[in-house]
Amino acid sequence: MKNHTKEWQELAEIKAELAERDWFMGTSGNLSIRESKSSSFYITASGKDKRKQTNADFLLVDLKGIPVEKTELRPSAETLLHTVIYEKTNANCVLHVHTVENNVISELYGDEGEVTFRNHEIIKATGRWNEDAELRIPIIYNHADIPLLTEKFKPHVEEDSGAVLIRNHGITVWGKSGLEAKRTLEACEFLFQYQLLLNQQQAFTGSIR
Amino acid sequence: MKNHTKEWQELAEIKAELAERDWFMGTSGNLSIRESKSSSFYITASGKDKRKQTNADFLLVDLKGIPVEKTELRPSAETLLHTVIYEKTNANCVLHVHTVENNVISELYGDEGEVTFRNHEIIKATGRWNEDAELRIPIIYNHADIPLLTEKFKPHVEEDSGAVLIRNHGITVWGKSGLEAKRTLEACEFLFQYQLLLNQQQAFTGSIR
Amino acid sequence: MKNHTKEWQELAEIKAELAERDWFMGTSGNLSIRESKSSSFYITASGKDKRKQTNADFLLVDLKGIPVEKTELRPSAETLLHTVIYEKTNANCVLHVHTVENNVISELYGDEGEVTFRNHEIIKATGRWNEDAELRIPIIYNHADIPLLTEKFKPHVEEDSGAVLIRNHGITVWGKSGLEAKRTLEACEFLFQYQLLLNQQQAFTGSIR
Amino acid sequence: MKNHTKEWQELAEIKAELAERDWFMGTSGNLSIRESKSSSFYITASGKDKRKQTNADFLLVDLKGIPVEKTELRPSAETLLHTVIYEKTNANCVLHVHTVENNVISELYGDEGEVTFRNHEIIKATGRWNEDAELRIPIIYNHADIPLLTEKFKPHVEEDSGAVLIRNHGITVWGKSGLEAKRTLEACEFLFQYQLLLNQQQAFTGSIR
Repeated sequence: MKNHTKEWQELAEIKAELAERDWFMGTSGNLSIRESKSSSFYITASGKDKRKQTNADFLLVDLKGIPVEKTELRPSAETLLHTVIYEKTNANCVLHVHTVENNVISELYGDEGEVTFRNHEIIKATGRWNEDAELRIPIIYNHADIPLLTEKFKPHVEEDSGAVLIRNHGITVWGKSGLEAKRTLEACEFLFQYQLLLNQQQAFTGSIR
Repeated sequence: MKNHTKEWQELAEIKAELAERDWFMGTSGNLSIRESKSSSFYITASGKDKRKQTNADFLLVDLKGIPVEKTELRPSAETLLHTVIYEKTNANCVLHVHTVENNVISELYGDEGEVTFRNHEIIKATGRWNEDAELRIPIIYNHADIPLLTEKFKPHVEEDSGAVLIRNHGITVWGKSGLEAKRTLEACEFLFQYQLLLNQQQAFTGSIR
Repeated sequence: MKNHTKEWQELAEIKAELAERDWFMGTSGNLSIRESKSSSFYITASGKDKRKQTNADFLLVDLKGIPVEKTELRPSAETLLHTVIYEKTNANCVLHVHTVENNVISELYGDEGEVTFRNHEIIKATGRWNEDAELRIPIIYNHADIPLLTEKFKPHVEEDSGAVLIRNHGITVWGKSGLEAKRTLEACEFLFQYQLLLNQQQAFTGSIR
Repeated sequence: MKNHTKEWQELAEIKAELAERDWFMGTSGNLSIRESKSSSFYITASGKDKRKQTNADFLLVDLKGIPVEKTELRPSAETLLHTVIYEKTNANCVLHVHTVENNVISELYGDEGEVTFRNHEIIKATGRWNEDAELRIPIIYNHADIPLLTEKFKPHVEEDSGAVLIRNHGITVWGKSGLEAKRTLEACEFLFQYQLLLNQQQAFTGSIR
């Protein structure tokens, strides 16, 4: 591997870690990190096998999603969603992954437009430290037209750290650092798995307790 | 490991990756890739532990499934299914794996002869890009007689990329490249896991929401 | 990595192993081990990514949880729970982890204040060897105020080896050695997974058998 | 690692592979392999962490389970079950593991004294090749007294390859080689996972299809 910037390296490490969990099934997912010395960000190139680590994994694009350097790589088809976050907030990292659990949660609670969690220690991992903290994750419709999807996504991007579910299309999280974005992602996935297992168990309550 | 062709290497990498996911339980499964400079293909040798990487993992066979070189290795007992795909299409890679989820899906939906998915971002991973794309996967009966099984399999092999479930006997996918075949496989497995979890959750809907 | 004491190394190995199982989602969890030649113990530093191995993973604190050496690291916010165990017992290792299963068990059985297991070979792994041994794990309320939580935790710390569930906040186990603490943790997690799967299956008994 | 015999190495590789799947939770499980040039076999030493690979992992014992060489290692407490298999059959490898799924299956079907599988391609992995092959796995009561448990186990050991479930105490499989034993083990675990998932799905059939 050739020499890369600190941000490139950080994103590569996050990618490797998420790949180990198999969170990029079918080459799905896309990741980005803001380059500290410029108004551009690294984003995953389109069509790559994300379980492999290569020099062509990421390319540098500007806040309109246009490649900053001459390159044969194409930025991810969903780059527009990333630009919204970098334009509206001070976030420095954006992660979008498909998991079976986040897809099922997005379908089960999609008609309500959100899913909400309370009374959970792990909510603190999203930066909410008060005892009665609640984590509300909006769920938006999966428009195939990316500019339209981006328009619907935009109103939910208000803070420097956050999470939005796209129905049957995974979760997008962001944070002020790679670690913060990953921590938020892991907390959300933990809560999704928890909720699905609790739903399943509580449905039996009458018969098993 | 001795020097191998590019195709041999590619198949070895795919095997290692699927083995890591434990998709070859009980030495099940078989994989092949078309050799670019000839009308033959590499296929997994019979009876090997697919979690190990050795020089005897694959052998080269012709379009009738007969070894091209003198070898002590026997081609997989299900080589005939691979020959059908290479004869009828331009596919260059075929993957057959047993997972618990693809077996359960094949049993649950087997009487209907197919399982169909819609409204799912990950369907794009199978090359279907329009918004209302549907992925239909045929399910055929598991005839113990391989030539008979091959006859029943044949009508479902029409495009250069595809997937067929054999009841309680895993999935066979193919594509124009190793990456395409693997992407299709992962998309199918993702959708199977999704469907099983959604079935389970929706069954409770009355009581939990 | 610089040279570390035997205890530091042992804790680092346990951390690496639990991280491999993904038992530190969202940077949750904290671990400690008693230093043999002093009345202090190593504990995980606050806010670190526990999937990474660094020289700054642990710091040495005394039995009040105050750092023994000058350091920029802050001990885990829940250090107080560890001090109680080292003060009241001869335990030498404490492990606190969040898993989806231990969280769901803590919620399902939380109102009863405990969950009990019997007739299970794996109970022996917790040091209970008689045929009718039972493993009782108390479940306490998750007070956000750590000193208050510690007060409620204290009465359940009586033996040199044990386990307590905190509702929607994971499990804390301890033992006379790192191996004993880990063995108890694994036995508990195995039993939680078992119970959840058995509950699910038995609920269907009427309809499936 | 010092130099070991071929059989020692083979058992070490099997142990490493099963450890990777986390099939030794709470230091449970025990493994053995027959030494080809003697009437003795290597068996896992008692009380070790089976996720680690050391020179003290196995010791050589005779057909009564008595160590053949001077050693500080104690053979597994359940060595007696292994001796029965080596005495009555030509098996050369015995594997005993606890998984959540094999424990739940042993409890669900324990009163019937057996669990039976049919119409499954993966049954071939146990050496049954005819189309209507059935795999019957006996389930015996978990007597805490090992000699008594061994007496109840003995009648089920008749062929050179086989599998027995002990209620809430895991599965014991054996085969003429390490590969055959492991293949049988994987086929059984696959079928257990399949059955549990199918039970769960079929219970909903009325409401979901």
